Formats: sequence, C-alpha cells, structure tokens
Amino acid sequence: MRKRTLPSGMHDKLFKRARVTYDIERKISDLLMAKGFNRIDTPTLEHAEVFSDQIEPNHYHLFDKQGDLLALRPDVTSQIGRVIASTQVHLPTKFSYSGKVFVYNEELRGLANETSQAGIEIIGYPAKSAVLEAIISAKEALDIAQVKNYQFEFSHAGIFRRICHQLELNREERARLLDLVRNKNITGLYEFTRLRPSKFDDFLENLPSLFGPYQEVLRAARSCLEDSELEAALDELEQLLRSLEDKLPRISLDLGQLSQMPYYTGLTFKVFGDKVPDAFLSGGRYDRLFERFGLKALTAVGWSLDIDSVYLAIHDDLAD
Amino acid sequence: MRKRTLPSGMHDKLFKRARVTYDIERKISDLLMAKGFNRIDTPTLEHAEVFSDQIEPNHYHLFDKQGDLLALRPDVTSQIGRVIASTQVHLPTKFSYSGKVFVYNEELRGLANETSQAGIEIIGYPAKSAVLEAIISAKEALDIAQVKNYQFEFSHAGIFRRICHQLELNREERARLLDLVRNKNITGLYEFTRLRPSKFDDFLENLPSLFGPYQEVLRAARSCLEDSELEAALDELEQLLRSLEDKLPRISLDLGQLSQMPYYTGLTFKVFGDKVPDAFLSGGRYDRLFERFGLKALTAVGWSLDIDSVYLAIHDDLAD
Repeated sequence: MRKRTLPSGMHDKLFKRARVTYDIERKISDLLMAKGFNRIDTPTLEHAEVFSDQIEPNHYHLFDKQGDLLALRPDVTSQIGRVIASTQVHLPTKFSYSGKVFVYNEELRGLANETSQAGIEIIGYPAKSAVLEAIISAKEALDIAQVKNYQFEFSHAGIFRRICHQLELNREERARLLDLVRNKNITGLYEFTRLRPSKFDDFLENLPSLFGPYQEVLRAARSCLEDSELEAALDELEQLLRSLEDKLPRISLDLGQLSQMPYYTGLTFKVFGDKVPDAFLSGGRYDRLFERFGLKALTAVGWSLDIDSVYLAIHDDLAD
Repeated sequence: MRKRTLPSGMHDKLFKRARVTYDIERKISDLLMAKGFNRIDTPTLEHAEVFSDQIEPNHYHLFDKQGDLLALRPDVTSQIGRVIASTQVHLPTKFSYSGKVFVYNEELRGLANETSQAGIEIIGYPAKSAVLEAIISAKEALDIAQVKNYQFEFSHAGIFRRICHQLELNREERARLLDLVRNKNITGLYEFTRLRPSKFDDFLENLPSLFGPYQEVLRAARSCLEDSELEAALDELEQLLRSLEDKLPRISLDLGQLSQMPYYTGLTFKVFGDKVPDAFLSGGRYDRLFERFGLKALTAVGWSLDIDSVYLAIHDDLAD
C-alpha cells in the first residue's frame, strides 16, 4: 500500500477552501489584467542561482539530468528580473502573475511550504507614478478580494542599506544587525552601537520604537538623525504618504520593517490585517535586481499578495 | 552575473500566450465548477510512491529534509486517489482542478516539461451515467475554449489488461507488448504470437488496423475474437458510442490506443485536433487506482485537458 500522508508543509485544499482561493486568484488576476498589467507565467523550476548566490536552506533544490542545480521558485520577482535580462521585452512594461511559490519552513511550525501568490511588477516607468500605481493596485486587489480592516505599513530599504554601507559591515555583521532590527532587540542594538560607534548610534538605538502613525515616526526619526541621505529617504516617504492619505484607509510607518527579500532597494510596504499573523501583501522598489542579471539598474516596483492569507482573513464571512 | 537561461523544458509565457492560457484555464475551471464539480487543489510535491511503485526516469525527484523521496506531480488523478484514501471525503463526489504538472522529456525533443492541465474526476457514481457525464463535460470544456474540429477517439484498457492476464505476462513482457501495440508494429506482433501462441493471436495480429469509424472497427474486431470478456468490453463500447452519436461531432475507435497512465481499467478516450500532434485531452475509467492506497475498487472516471495544446490549436484565430 502506498503512502497516504503528505510531505511536510504540503496540504490539500478541498471544497470551500479550494473554491474561495481559486476565486480570490481569479478576481485579482482579472482586475490586474483589466488595469493593463500584462499577464506573465514563469516556470516553477529555475536554476537555483536566479534566486540566490548561495544555497539557501529554505529553498527546495533538485538536480536535473544535465547536473544543474534547480530550485522550486520561492518568489516570482527574481524570475521577472531574469526575463527582462534574457528576452527582448520592450521597456517600460507592467506585468501581473499568479501561481505557486515554495519556501521550506521548519516542520514544527506547521506552516504551508507551498503558497499561492498574485502580484505585479512595474518596470522602467518614472518612479513616483509607478510607486503610486503599485500601491493603488494593491489596495484595489485587497478590496476586490473583500479584505476588510487592513493597514498599509511603509518602510524604506535604503535606510538599512545606507547604514550597512557607511559602517562597512561584512555579510555576517549585516545579518546580525538585520536580526537585531527585525526583532526590535533594544539591548542587542545598544551592544552593537557600543562596539561599532558611529553617527547612526542614536538612530539605531531608537529604531525599535520608530513605528506608528507616520507623522509622529518621521518627527522622532528626524530628531535622532544626522545624515543627509537618510533624511532624503524620510522626505521621500513623507511626500508619498501625504499623497496617499485620502487613498488608503490606514497608513503607518515602521522604519524597523526589513523585508526577507534581499532585492528591495527603496520604499517598501506591507499590508496587515486583524485576523492573520503574517502580511497579506508585501512590495517595494527593487531597482538593482537587474544588475544581478547583467543589466543596469531600472526603476522597478512590485508587490505580491499571499492568497492563502487572504483566504484566512475572509473565509468566516463567506457561505460554505 | 547570474545564469539567464532556463532549465531544460522550462518556458516563460509572456503577453498573448500568458493571457490566452490563463483565459482557457479560467473558462474551463468556471464551467466545471458551475456544473457541480467541486474544486480541489492538491500540492505540487508528493511522496514519489503516490505516482509509481518504481523510480520513474521521467519524473522530477527530490529529497526533503526528512530524507523522504518526493516527486513533482506528473498528474493529478493519482493525488486524488490518495485524497480519497486519506481524508473523510464523503462519496460519491465530483472534483475539478487545474494546475501545473511535470514530466521530464528528453531535451532534444524540445518539449515542455511543465504543462498546465485542467480536469475532472467523478468517483463513486453509477458507471454508465458517470462516463456520459465525463464525456459531455469534456466536450463542453473544449467548446468553451473555442477548440474547433476535434475528434473523440475511444478505446478500452480492459482489452490489454485481459490479454496480459490470460497470457500470464511478466512486467517486461507486458512492457514489450505495450510497445508493439502502441507503435502498431505488425511484424513485432506476429513475432510475439509465434512465441506466445494463444486464442488472442488473430486479434493481436489485427490490432494495428483496428481503428477508424467505430461500427467498422467493432465488426472487424468481433470477427477475430473468441473471448467472452473482450466481447463484453466491445459491447460496452458499442452501447456507449451509439448513445454519444448525436452528442459528439466526430467519434472514432482505436483499440490499439493504450494510455501512458497505468491506472486506467476500462473505457478510455482521447481527443485530437487537426493542428496539434498530441491529444488535447485524455481520460477514462480508473476504478482500481484506489486499491493502491488501501481502499477497495470504486467506480471512477475522469479526464485531463492539456491547456498548452489547446492554446496551440486556437491562438491563430485570436487577436494579439
């Protein structure tokens, strides 16, 4: 008799769950295509190096018959970077996609290792309008999926990048600092600034509390900053968030929000809800992704939405 | 700089191709759900033994962190067998699905190793009405996808099964005979009947020509058969095809049509078009699949449609 259990992190979706997740994917995909985002369908398997320069322990790997190391895609954005670099796609362009992505989570956490995403990428358009279009389309995707009570939370990947660069941190030091910031580890951050003193000390020590309503956060951040590049990032954030005030229901800022995805270069955003622990949606600027495939930097912004999280948020309100 | 090429058999779909294949998948999925087929979404990765007792060279395999051998699913039907055996799904039931499947083809043939399928399974209903419902829904799926000039070609997996069983063929002999029949290898079949003479000789030697309009094929088949079980299979075919005459545009019979899928037990069917080399759709009865997962046999019939083949057949007629 054959095995009847599923591999770790794999799940069947049946009946209402399957129907509603299909419906969410379809509604969002239809919306995005109707708004002019060209549909793209990238393969499930790619050469592993498309996604990372190292062997990532939480990617699924296999060898194909040529002996090449492949990975089940953990995200689609890296693939679209590879598409732009390897095909004759005319720029600027806008893509939308939906499909499965694969990340190996620790078994004990009971997480799904295969999830359904929908998303967009806007590549080569002027930055300001591209960012606005990305955010408005994210809001519309959540609305058409009938998500209620969501909150946009913004940050800026340039802040962390700038500090690491100025302090000349190596890969391990950067990973350590990333960890401290993500976990809002105040003691650890004090320890860090004691060992690596710089003009960013005040800012780093306060970073764990730099979240909340955006005007307050910006005021607090500016009071502990002396760096023109970081001030420019804050100005960019302020200008954007002000223009979004009448367009989004709830806006907050979390300068300690740092994405798992290494390709973000500028503004980043996540959307959270009341009923789900993780973000529904995350996105941002990733202008420098293309350099990894031999192109120059391009203005690029995108987001991906986790269809399974949206299902968790809305399924109580739906008929069986 | 990272690799910009794709692994063997992997492809990007862009613009019209992505949009139209999405559209085909959506239209067919919507149709099937509207007709009462419950949506199901099975995972991309399963334990390899769900699909085969052996290591199949044309499956994609990998090990997960528990050391279990996994496979990227080559088909969905086997997974639904596993679902029926491992969950509390109430029978009878009808499922519909769509998604990616993975088969490793030889590089030189330039084939796609990842394809999109849509399909149905009808499990535990009375056989006659289930078979009719499967075939009619297949026709409606092709029609809604705007496929023109297609042809249904029927066969019966019980014929080959019966002959192998009566001749007590071992695994290798069965594979050899399968190969001879599939390739309509007349010389090889004469050689086979010389070495393994039986009451099926006349039938086996004529099998390569037993295809065409169904009444003629049935007449020719009956004239070279002396086996009540095979005659019963032909009677079953005749009764079904007669009832389908006013429902399907073109019907043919090919008694040498033998499916790649090992789980078919009775009636099988494929749908071919003018413009594509492979079948758009294939299906059949697979009552004994469930035994492999520790259940008793169940009346079951299903089909899967190759969305990429449908795209090839219809894209010329569509605007860019």
